[in-house]
Amino acid sequence: MVELLDMPQDGPPPSDLPDLDPETMARVRASVARQTLLTTLGVTIERLAPGYVELGLTSRADLTQQHGFVHAAAITAIADSACGYAAYTGFPEDRDVLTVDFSMSLLAPAAHPAFVAVGRVIRSGRTLTICRGEVYGIAEAAERRLVALIQATMMAVTRMSPSG
Amino acid sequence: MVELLDMPQDGPPPSDLPDLDPETMARVRASVARQTLLTTLGVTIERLAPGYVELGLTSRADLTQQHGFVHAAAITAIADSACGYAAYTGFPEDRDVLTVDFSMSLLAPAAHPAFVAVGRVIRSGRTLTICRGEVYGIAEAAERRLVALIQATMMAVTRMSPSG
Amino acid sequence: MVELLDMPQDGPPPSDLPDLDPETMARVRASVARQTLLTTLGVTIERLAPGYVELGLTSRADLTQQHGFVHAAAITAIADSACGYAAYTGFPEDRDVLTVDFSMSLLAPAAHPAFVAVGRVIRSGRTLTICRGEVYGIAEAAERRLVALIQATMMAVTRMSPSG
Amino acid sequence: MVELLDMPQDGPPPSDLPDLDPETMARVRASVARQTLLTTLGVTIERLAPGYVELGLTSRADLTQQHGFVHAAAITAIADSACGYAAYTGFPEDRDVLTVDFSMSLLAPAAHPAFVAVGRVIRSGRTLTICRGEVYGIAEAAERRLVALIQATMMAVTRMSPSG
Repeated sequence: MVELLDMPQDGPPPSDLPDLDPETMARVRASVARQTLLTTLGVTIERLAPGYVELGLTSRADLTQQHGFVHAAAITAIADSACGYAAYTGFPEDRDVLTVDFSMSLLAPAAHPAFVAVGRVIRSGRTLTICRGEVYGIAEAAERRLVALIQATMMAVTRMSPSG
Repeated sequence: MVELLDMPQDGPPPSDLPDLDPETMARVRASVARQTLLTTLGVTIERLAPGYVELGLTSRADLTQQHGFVHAAAITAIADSACGYAAYTGFPEDRDVLTVDFSMSLLAPAAHPAFVAVGRVIRSGRTLTICRGEVYGIAEAAERRLVALIQATMMAVTRMSPSG
Repeated sequence: MVELLDMPQDGPPPSDLPDLDPETMARVRASVARQTLLTTLGVTIERLAPGYVELGLTSRADLTQQHGFVHAAAITAIADSACGYAAYTGFPEDRDVLTVDFSMSLLAPAAHPAFVAVGRVIRSGRTLTICRGEVYGIAEAAERRLVALIQATMMAVTRMSPSG
Repeated sequence: MVELLDMPQDGPPPSDLPDLDPETMARVRASVARQTLLTTLGVTIERLAPGYVELGLTSRADLTQQHGFVHAAAITAIADSACGYAAYTGFPEDRDVLTVDFSMSLLAPAAHPAFVAVGRVIRSGRTLTICRGEVYGIAEAAERRLVALIQATMMAVTRMSPSG
């Protein structure tokens, strides 16, 4: 059981995260690559650590809502995926991750040129893993501004049997 | 397994919804057209009524998660948008809709060739509108199967001022 | 204001629910009786059917928020419990129910003399059961008014082992 | 607008919170005292700072679920109230706080002798304030263990007009 009590909620990314083992890192990268929607949105892996994942997204003309900002669905996609992969880093090799449910709060318009979603494991049990995450807009000089919050329940399932 | 009892939420769409006035219908269509992400995902308007919206989505090779099913983010996009536009149908002309937050439950893999998201207004106040919605997978013979639930809080904002 | 359209969720309770078997009914009653908080709040069982539970609550001077209405925490207690017991009606005898998470929307002040919470199973899997519920204020002449919505994820656990 | 980017999510309580002005502190205490449900549950104010509130709860024989642990509804009551009062500390004098919605994750059984709920403002706008909170079980030697998470949307309303 991983219980990550000291993760900073906001602020700059933590600089002292432990390394993720290469085998798990390769599994995460392969899984992300299989999710064609993430490729369609242009999602990038920014950081991988045990129970901690950052995904990136760049604003693009084909990803907007009605005012030209990045659509909440794209923001949600990286928030949910960052949490799902944060959970996945703690699973044994024969397990896959499934989102059971999540709650998303949209705090500010996604008006930035780029975004990073942070997903963190808060508590992992045998079956369920509870995560929290945040999405930040990134402006010039790497200034970050919080645009969304997520709280998610993830489930470990036997690979290729994604039923609740 | 008990499923859905006597609730019509996964039954056929209601046949007796009142008509939406043409001006509001035009506003909804124009707003959907401006959301380039919805175009990127191939989202279609299936039904518009006062406080009730159905949006469609077709499974496509570039919209999948790791098992080839439609990605939860695309399912969430139509669920959230159906709720947002259901709220929007009740707003005056100078108002726009903003998602404050939503809670999404993913019930079954989105393994169907097509999907329809239903969004309904449950209660609308001066500022906030609370909605519920469901996403159904559509198989042959128009059989519907519930794949996701949403409960959402929407906000009416002065047009082009999308801040909380 | 658009409210509730054609959904029976705030209508009269369904009249044609199947009966719950006596053994499960006795298990539910015994479990409710063991929850001393429900006794402290004065919660009553109003209806039990497979995958469907109604719990009652009467307004009382020691259950209020700052304006003298029933506190959201008491409304939440009956909403969550109605969903939990709705799930429980479908479990085998050696299982207990645990709330994993829930999302609650408070629609109107709980200013009524009495309340009923409806909990319904939407989908039950091996491990997780997803429920929805509503809380209604009851005024004179049994008129019902929707005051809250819940969407909840419940988990079946081996009796006396309530860990995630 | 308060934006609290550096609040620690878990771990020991922050030691360097700014003081809350005495007038606001008095308003919070008076409001808590008017909520008779909080008195019924034995809720105590443990800490008040701008955008940050801690509430306490002691395990008691009349507050349990079926296994003798503190009922999730009591845990939810202090989580929601801590968030609500955290929001309230930033409101002008003529405003009251109303919970719009919240999402609660229950991580571990509430088996401890005492609990503390932390509520923090994440972002406050003109109308809506988004909060996060955690509930910890407190064991001997002041050891804290996370038992629940909340993510909540609060609304500022004119005093005595608590309608959405």
